[in-house]
Amino acid sequence: MSEGREPREEVERWLAEFGAALAARDISGVTALFGDECFWRDLVAFTWNVKTLEGRDAIAAMLEAQLDSMSPTVWRLEGKPTVSDGVVEAWICFETGHARGRGIVRLRDGRAFTLLTAIEELKGFEERKARSRPMGAAHGVYQRDKNWLEAKRAEEESLGKERQPYCVVVGGGQGGIALGARLKHLGVPTIILEKNARAGDSWRNRYRSLVLHDPVWYDHLPYIPFPENWPVFTPKDKLGDWLEMYAKVMELNYWGSSECVRASYDDKRAEWSVDVVRNGSRTTLKPKHLVFATGAYGPPNIVPLPGIENFSGPCFHSSSYKTGEPYAGKNCVVIGSNSSAHDIAADLWEYGAHVTMLQRSPTTVVRSETLMQLGFEPLYSESAVEAGITTNEADLVFAATPFRIMPRGQIPVYEEVRRRDAALYADLKKSGFKIDFGEDDSGLMMKAFRTGSGYYIDVGASDLIVKGRIAVRSGVEIERVKERSVELTDGSELPADLIVMATGFQSMNRALAPIISEEVADKVGKCWGLGSGVPGDPGPWEGEPRNMWKPTQQPGLWFHGGNLHLSRHYSLVLGLQIKARMEGLPTPVYGLDPVHHTR
Amino acid sequence: MSEGREPREEVERWLAEFGAALAARDISGVTALFGDECFWRDLVAFTWNVKTLEGRDAIAAMLEAQLDSMSPTVWRLEGKPTVSDGVVEAWICFETGHARGRGIVRLRDGRAFTLLTAIEELKGFEERKARSRPMGAAHGVYQRDKNWLEAKRAEEESLGKERQPYCVVVGGGQGGIALGARLKHLGVPTIILEKNARAGDSWRNRYRSLVLHDPVWYDHLPYIPFPENWPVFTPKDKLGDWLEMYAKVMELNYWGSSECVRASYDDKRAEWSVDVVRNGSRTTLKPKHLVFATGAYGPPNIVPLPGIENFSGPCFHSSSYKTGEPYAGKNCVVIGSNSSAHDIAADLWEYGAHVTMLQRSPTTVVRSETLMQLGFEPLYSESAVEAGITTNEADLVFAATPFRIMPRGQIPVYEEVRRRDAALYADLKKSGFKIDFGEDDSGLMMKAFRTGSGYYIDVGASDLIVKGRIAVRSGVEIERVKERSVELTDGSELPADLIVMATGFQSMNRALAPIISEEVADKVGKCWGLGSGVPGDPGPWEGEPRNMWKPTQQPGLWFHGGNLHLSRHYSLVLGLQIKARMEGLPTPVYGLDPVHHTR
Repeated sequence: MSEGREPREEVERWLAEFGAALAARDISGVTALFGDECFWRDLVAFTWNVKTLEGRDAIAAMLEAQLDSMSPTVWRLEGKPTVSDGVVEAWICFETGHARGRGIVRLRDGRAFTLLTAIEELKGFEERKARSRPMGAAHGVYQRDKNWLEAKRAEEESLGKERQPYCVVVGGGQGGIALGARLKHLGVPTIILEKNARAGDSWRNRYRSLVLHDPVWYDHLPYIPFPENWPVFTPKDKLGDWLEMYAKVMELNYWGSSECVRASYDDKRAEWSVDVVRNGSRTTLKPKHLVFATGAYGPPNIVPLPGIENFSGPCFHSSSYKTGEPYAGKNCVVIGSNSSAHDIAADLWEYGAHVTMLQRSPTTVVRSETLMQLGFEPLYSESAVEAGITTNEADLVFAATPFRIMPRGQIPVYEEVRRRDAALYADLKKSGFKIDFGEDDSGLMMKAFRTGSGYYIDVGASDLIVKGRIAVRSGVEIERVKERSVELTDGSELPADLIVMATGFQSMNRALAPIISEEVADKVGKCWGLGSGVPGDPGPWEGEPRNMWKPTQQPGLWFHGGNLHLSRHYSLVLGLQIKARMEGLPTPVYGLDPVHHTR
Repeated sequence: MSEGREPREEVERWLAEFGAALAARDISGVTALFGDECFWRDLVAFTWNVKTLEGRDAIAAMLEAQLDSMSPTVWRLEGKPTVSDGVVEAWICFETGHARGRGIVRLRDGRAFTLLTAIEELKGFEERKARSRPMGAAHGVYQRDKNWLEAKRAEEESLGKERQPYCVVVGGGQGGIALGARLKHLGVPTIILEKNARAGDSWRNRYRSLVLHDPVWYDHLPYIPFPENWPVFTPKDKLGDWLEMYAKVMELNYWGSSECVRASYDDKRAEWSVDVVRNGSRTTLKPKHLVFATGAYGPPNIVPLPGIENFSGPCFHSSSYKTGEPYAGKNCVVIGSNSSAHDIAADLWEYGAHVTMLQRSPTTVVRSETLMQLGFEPLYSESAVEAGITTNEADLVFAATPFRIMPRGQIPVYEEVRRRDAALYADLKKSGFKIDFGEDDSGLMMKAFRTGSGYYIDVGASDLIVKGRIAVRSGVEIERVKERSVELTDGSELPADLIVMATGFQSMNRALAPIISEEVADKVGKCWGLGSGVPGDPGPWEGEPRNMWKPTQQPGLWFHGGNLHLSRHYSLVLGLQIKARMEGLPTPVYGLDPVHHTR
């Protein structure tokens, strides 16, 4: 904080100068208000993109391109700024020509260190909620032709036949459902395609012991939060029921038992042709936008296993694992050491199998309880609720930290994690299990954003490893599969009746290849990862998850997904981009990323 | 407010003296703290009853009986008292030996004018919510035998067979569902019996144009409020879907297609034997408590129509009315002039029928918009939400006004209603429609509490009457029904192809007669009504709705119901009474009411 100035006064002065410089199109005046190290993260409000501008030059370049068309106006402080370690943090709200937004600015020595600008709503196309919620009853009796149910049925019957949806979402898990709910309330005609029969089945069909590893406060969907007696960790079938209920009361056009088998884009008409097999019969949809929300990941990553043709037992990918029931007393080899590998190894052990985990590379393990206290507590917890932090506010606070500097905040958290759970880590080491906390010791969340793999939130399996109930072989691979065993690269041999490949997934863009084409899959490029230059996340640095929730190199094609938190928050970010296009608002995209990696 | 004393200080001083007198068992000390006109309304916290004590003597008598066993301790001011018209109003919380409660005290000249004490939770049996919510996952891997779904299915399969429910609720509308949700979270094994196949069907099966006449803020269920984009007036099928999903995600043991055909009470075992036909097959349940939640009303009130045997068209009660579709161009006579009569007449008109409404007695009509502004606005509205008034707080504020003095607050509201909508009332009068506002001009809500009839919230039908599209004949009855007409008591004749009896319902206790016995129906007596001495609500004054949400003359038998507001609020009041009995807490009931009327 600058000498002798109140935080409120400091922020108000900064905002006034910032607003004035923007209004005057004085770009050097704007950048002079940012510090030597500075970041402006924008969610669609200025860039029609999800973009972090790093440094004054990047900010100037963005403003050169966007400022005239965005014409920001109002900049206002919200609430009371806080001060911590000399950084003044404040909520702000603002308007552009076409949108209203909220954000967070952090000032260091009177200049901006980080700025978040996040779109909240489009002017003239606000969601009808609270004071502007629909009346429901058309009061005043008149000879109406349809009541609510009849109108709903008529829409269900005509959409995709006489009337085309503006948007089709492939995949009806939490991502597709959250986005579908946003689009519904934004008035964008949408059809959600889901392979399984019912909403929620993608969770129900997973292995029987699965429960969410993230706590309830992190997992709310938009519009209807979980009630206050909902369990901290939701069992998979309970989540399935909730999603099914949610899709129904939100009145989504949710097509179960429907598979997208083929899609092609007509550049001239700027329209997709989407072939769908619905309950066995084929139909074609013609949306303007196609969203892939097929899960956080792409197709399963199947590793080649020499000699597998000789194996007498079953061998499958973790995504096909259902239950350990058939394997009591059997010898099971689980390849991999991340979340699924741990869950499956524990499930097999519960059923009395003899399990060996083959750890191919070190794993970040954090006890669930420790992560709740050190990771989730400030934003997603009962304490946060009691402090009056809404889920939307928590999401924005989380989004306000640019990815470049996120590790700085995480490294001390993991120093504390290692201190608290030193005994567990020592025990795991003794068991032969290899622990790491990422290249820069920034821990689990950075691994998730960089590679989407390499970690386990410990809900009990680590104890089984420590106690030797799950055996671990680390730093070895399978040399050769034999009829009833596997030979490892160190020459040893393990008896095996079952092999589970918990070897992760390919990038989401690979899901495009069989449906659209290899060319489009490559043109669009890899999804997720930040370009941080660590194994699994090759550079160059890109600064935002690749291709997620923002325009791609393929017009009309979008990706949506992630855990419940990301599905909830970015469903608004993506939903508003689609709505703006439907309404014909100008949407000049700044800094569409070139593709550096195809898979 | 007393001279020269701050409201906060005044309330704190009053509470300290009140608490001290109670602790000292100094009953005259307690009553000295009440004004000459005073009321103590208690919801279960002191009386294990729903009871308003009117005047110091009644308060003293209650304390004589209850004080020793209730042992109230803490009395604390919550928040900041407000002052209006010289009355200081404050939120309070308190504890008794077995419970925690909240309430509202209103002081006039330093002494209590009204006091509300409402039970909130039982000590040691608190609902598991917020900080104490269940974990969901049993962290730590162990050889568990059931996951969430398997455990749920096992409970569903055993309850009512190997394991008996502690409580059976007859009727699965909003009343049964709200109570079921409370009991679920209180850990009381409960089965809800619903005649229709699915939860929500009791709404879906009503006439096609039906929408709630109360606004969304008044209609929330416990635990999961409607989202902020929910329409103000919920269409019947949309409410049906919400109830169905609610029952599912709340994990209620909800037996659809299940009818309670017979029930008898074994005094020695203090247990019911309840015969149920479920999907056509018969089973017997043995609960300790039986709750009738069969709707706000009892069986339809069928009026005798001389000559009906000669009538060539259909004639049925309003509860059987579905749609006006078959009656285009037909002559329809609707007997009655309350809500259903208006809705049905309007629906028939929408389909092109010629409708005449036979008004048997004057009706209180209030325009929906006016009622929203003058009636609901302070507690149940977007303004109330913005002012931070939670639904639970609104319910308590509403409950804090004793029924005896409720008309005092209502009369000025209806003066304003008449002023605002003078034109409508003049026009209705011209059409021959008879308006009233109750014996004492206290309007719609008092009519609802006194007789449950005699009013219409105008959502458009009044305009049809004014315009002559719905004809009205007032002050006449049907003298005789002929083959294709009705002859009226004034000698005139109306052509008739359809007769609908919108003639209301019998008292809820009448629903007991065919299931339990005439004797028990009579022993328990009439439900609802306050004993206000107006037609339809004969005295003596009882001061609380008869038999609702509180012990009755039949051990183990309870009534629950009312609109969504009452179903929500009193489901907690009743749920805690049942829970306390299950846990064997002492529940000395004070002032069980004698029965003055059997129907």
